[in-house]
Amino acid sequence: MQRHPARPPDLPPPAPPDRGIGSIGAGPSVAVASGAMNLYDATVPVFTKLLSNIETWIDKAAAHAEARKFDVDVIAGARLAPDQYPFVRQVQSACDQAKFTVAKLTGKEPPSHPDTEKTMAELRQRIHTVVAYLGSFKREEFAGAEERPCSHSWMGGKSLPGGDYLHHFALPNFHFHLTTAYDILRHNGVSVGKMDYIVDLPFRA
Amino acid sequence: MQRHPARPPDLPPPAPPDRGIGSIGAGPSVAVASGAMNLYDATVPVFTKLLSNIETWIDKAAAHAEARKFDVDVIAGARLAPDQYPFVRQVQSACDQAKFTVAKLTGKEPPSHPDTEKTMAELRQRIHTVVAYLGSFKREEFAGAEERPCSHSWMGGKSLPGGDYLHHFALPNFHFHLTTAYDILRHNGVSVGKMDYIVDLPFRA
Repeated sequence: MQRHPARPPDLPPPAPPDRGIGSIGAGPSVAVASGAMNLYDATVPVFTKLLSNIETWIDKAAAHAEARKFDVDVIAGARLAPDQYPFVRQVQSACDQAKFTVAKLTGKEPPSHPDTEKTMAELRQRIHTVVAYLGSFKREEFAGAEERPCSHSWMGGKSLPGGDYLHHFALPNFHFHLTTAYDILRHNGVSVGKMDYIVDLPFRA
Repeated sequence: MQRHPARPPDLPPPAPPDRGIGSIGAGPSVAVASGAMNLYDATVPVFTKLLSNIETWIDKAAAHAEARKFDVDVIAGARLAPDQYPFVRQVQSACDQAKFTVAKLTGKEPPSHPDTEKTMAELRQRIHTVVAYLGSFKREEFAGAEERPCSHSWMGGKSLPGGDYLHHFALPNFHFHLTTAYDILRHNGVSVGKMDYIVDLPFRA
């Protein structure tokens, strides 16, 4: 994934390698220019990476299904409780949350994606569609997004400033569905681990 | 929960109530003064609310256990897979992630909390301890946190700027453990739903 080019070049040095727990005392607090923080960075690259990564999970589910001689789409319909969404709907929900979040933060009308997928192959297509949509956003479109009033159909007309919308609603909701999709695979014996969730960290050093 | 007092008073009006899906076209993009976005808002109130809310889940687990005549601490040890952390360790991990995140973003040394809890009652105490620690942080301590180099013991000495640390690592990790704790309850028949996860949204209007 490309990092955006807007990082200033004169950053403080990273924590030295003998400080395994990191930044503690590693450097002074850095005053940054307005605009260094932009909700693009908190959304588009994160959603793109994590949604794309579901395909790795589906690959592992397919390998598991093949080894055990069952149809991987049985897992597409698997749930952790009878009144909970199955895997396919968890992935659809994560896709929708990503789509709605970037649209609302930038004041756009999101496209409609009917939840018609039933198979892992169809879920891959849904992921590609949403990732392509995320790729159409530009960093500058998120200027001021942290204060833009954002709402959701079940908020009864009430709204939150974009920063609160993101951290109190959108990211919890996105990770809620993404982790539950992961947990459904985990419960069904697919060999996923946390390092299949926390992937491709954009280290600076 | 108290909202921080630093919001500028001259905000745009919220979306009108007849725009159920929210901000689309509801107002212009708003340029905000530097400092309006502060990672305190993305961490301390969110972690405090969501960790405290686990007690509501434990209350529901206790009611379920009492109705079915089993010891609720059986659920404290429940897992979704034999090689996955049980509920108690998922909650401990979420507590630790919250603690480490606010410490690293502000350049502090976090306190050590040995993972000795085995019961729901002990988990409640662990939550209280971490929530009290979160409450000791002030918004101004997060100035510049988005660019502060942050690391974690398993990053091999590498670091991320605080904003990336938060959105690529800390929040995914926090919600990963919190949602898995939730999913363990859900799988064991406790009557929790998504509205027990996405709680107390700080609506502006």
